[in-house]
Amino acid sequence: MFGARCLLRALRSCSSAPCPRHRPAARVSVRGALGIQSANGERVKVQGWIRSVRSQKEVLFLHVNDGSSLESLQVVADSSFDSRELAFGSSVEVQGQLVKSPSKKQNVELKAEKIEVVGNCDAKAFPVKYKERHPLEYLRQYPHLRCRTNVLGSVLRVRSEATAAIHSFFKDSGFVHIHTPVITSNDCEGAGELFQVEVMENLFKTTAMTVLSNCPKDVELCHKFIAPGQKDRLEHMLKNNFLVISYTEAVEILKQASQNFTFTPEWGADLHTEHEKYLVKHCGDIPVFVINYPLALKPFYMRDNEDGPQHTVAAVDLLVPGVGELFGGSLREERYHFLEQRLARLGLTEAYQWYLDLRRFGSVPHGGFGMGFERYLQCILGIDNIKDVIPFPRFTHSCLL
Amino acid sequence: MFGARCLLRALRSCSSAPCPRHRPAARVSVRGALGIQSANGERVKVQGWIRSVRSQKEVLFLHVNDGSSLESLQVVADSSFDSRELAFGSSVEVQGQLVKSPSKKQNVELKAEKIEVVGNCDAKAFPVKYKERHPLEYLRQYPHLRCRTNVLGSVLRVRSEATAAIHSFFKDSGFVHIHTPVITSNDCEGAGELFQVEVMENLFKTTAMTVLSNCPKDVELCHKFIAPGQKDRLEHMLKNNFLVISYTEAVEILKQASQNFTFTPEWGADLHTEHEKYLVKHCGDIPVFVINYPLALKPFYMRDNEDGPQHTVAAVDLLVPGVGELFGGSLREERYHFLEQRLARLGLTEAYQWYLDLRRFGSVPHGGFGMGFERYLQCILGIDNIKDVIPFPRFTHSCLL
Repeated sequence: MFGARCLLRALRSCSSAPCPRHRPAARVSVRGALGIQSANGERVKVQGWIRSVRSQKEVLFLHVNDGSSLESLQVVADSSFDSRELAFGSSVEVQGQLVKSPSKKQNVELKAEKIEVVGNCDAKAFPVKYKERHPLEYLRQYPHLRCRTNVLGSVLRVRSEATAAIHSFFKDSGFVHIHTPVITSNDCEGAGELFQVEVMENLFKTTAMTVLSNCPKDVELCHKFIAPGQKDRLEHMLKNNFLVISYTEAVEILKQASQNFTFTPEWGADLHTEHEKYLVKHCGDIPVFVINYPLALKPFYMRDNEDGPQHTVAAVDLLVPGVGELFGGSLREERYHFLEQRLARLGLTEAYQWYLDLRRFGSVPHGGFGMGFERYLQCILGIDNIKDVIPFPRFTHSCLL
Repeated sequence: MFGARCLLRALRSCSSAPCPRHRPAARVSVRGALGIQSANGERVKVQGWIRSVRSQKEVLFLHVNDGSSLESLQVVADSSFDSRELAFGSSVEVQGQLVKSPSKKQNVELKAEKIEVVGNCDAKAFPVKYKERHPLEYLRQYPHLRCRTNVLGSVLRVRSEATAAIHSFFKDSGFVHIHTPVITSNDCEGAGELFQVEVMENLFKTTAMTVLSNCPKDVELCHKFIAPGQKDRLEHMLKNNFLVISYTEAVEILKQASQNFTFTPEWGADLHTEHEKYLVKHCGDIPVFVINYPLALKPFYMRDNEDGPQHTVAAVDLLVPGVGELFGGSLREERYHFLEQRLARLGLTEAYQWYLDLRRFGSVPHGGFGMGFERYLQCILGIDNIKDVIPFPRFTHSCLL
């Protein structure tokens, strides 16, 4: 979109120039160039890395990619260009004319007038090899170079689209985005358990569909890369989406200001989006809701959902279960005293004064849910190992870069 | 927007009910209710906190706010309601009919049929006092309650709008959003210096204007709260915006995949947005660019801008200045060796292998800039102390919540 708009603007601005040969070339992204429906000799400049080189007797074909799309742009050059410098992995700037491609493989190709090698690539030492499909385990050793491959480039583009879709979903649903602190003086509540969730207002599906419609080929690539032949996998994962629950006190505190959501990395867990809604009385009030958690494993902070479908449980007040804030209506005096005494017995009165305060100054029932962003990406992309959907994964004994 | 849409949907779904009295009340936000242009007895349910109570002989006026907007909704109840329970700070659920208000102060008011107190507020102990304009210093002692005030509520809404505007700006400009790690094994480069910047493609102004057009009254409130009478202040700050420079290696590495930006908290600094663009050759290629930094104080990693206006400097390659990657074109063999030797002398070869690798496998000139998000908010809102634009600020000897 951007590239095409940018190109049109640039072309418009120089349309009064007398000779096409002397028009300044408009700088466009590969995505922008590929998006031109009927190329007609537009003079453009494209920058990117060489993904493939095919040298024929009188003509040289390059594929140039700049990370703006999965597809590369085909560059056609005559034999006067020195093909030795134009090697896989090198960065180039190509100036020329965008024309309709005679091949069925692409709509558009770039007839090169000038090719400048910006940075050479030492192909022998470069861990990414020409036309090789490296296993993800292998690429994990090179966190600083793996984004140059198709599959990791796709993951980055899909992450970006997914982030934008999550922001849009909550914004459109009237939630205020908040930034929660990375350091906290509070203990975090128990997290890391797996639940099967039903998406009440379609956070998961809405955002997944946005991503799928924005980068279908990227998703397809990731999916194929991992599990060739398993076409049902994505659909299956979309049906049985496993998410991680996690809460922070920040979203709870700020729910006083407005219903809100956050999207912040958490210690010991992956990136999360969390939301909190006040005055929740029914399961249906919460956009994302936990269901079908095995009764035998039901954690202390969950309770039966009396209004919704049978055998379902919901995450309620985590710190002091049984106070009955969620679904329970107001917090009356006797309940507040029960809470006060309980915290006193635990020696937590001072540390949790904020928690008590929230309950005596216009308390409201509230509820929310956290979604593990990286797990969500695994679902969409069908990628088995979480390390492959995180640009710079941190795990035991590993903090590369 | 959300509230109004939600209301319309809800109203549409029950429009076939025979008796208006028995229609289920649609739950709407205060913002949604206030957005109704010509209220005509729509039955709605509003939840929020009581901001003011005015009891007259036969009628009771409440102002209810739920954090969705700066303005509160006026609720009109007859004297049959018990005004003792309806106190400042309590949370309530009000059901009734939205009607045109006879007063000029608001378009709409809610004629209450039912008011339920959800949570009482211990007004004596509540640090936020009725109709009092507390100084921000005072409110800072209560990070868990201050979002209940108008000014901090506004800050949260504006933060949220600003975040969304920054995301949109970069997305529309073709940048891929990346999540950078919070823990890193690399030393961060020198940061924390102040620059006067010129906004080349209007990151600052575009997003500021989006915020201003989305929440003008919120911005107005914050601005007035701090500096009553100083109307030129905002404009002045918009002209002389001071931003903090900061770089991370992550954006530099991932610029190989695409031009990108991040929006992540950083240690020892406030929340930043950073972007990195590859194949930068001219200042004009960078959306945000540093100018007018005093020559005498010019840090080692900045250099004169030869193409742009005089006496301007730009941030270039931070680790090894003088290699001339920015504006310099390709990194030739002799330059790579110079870099290699320099790192070897510093004993950094192993730690910075990634840095060397980026420069031998298709290196590209690149540039970018970081903007301190909280400083940006200070500019828009005219708020003097950075602690008042951060929901849970962390500073020396203070890590409340």
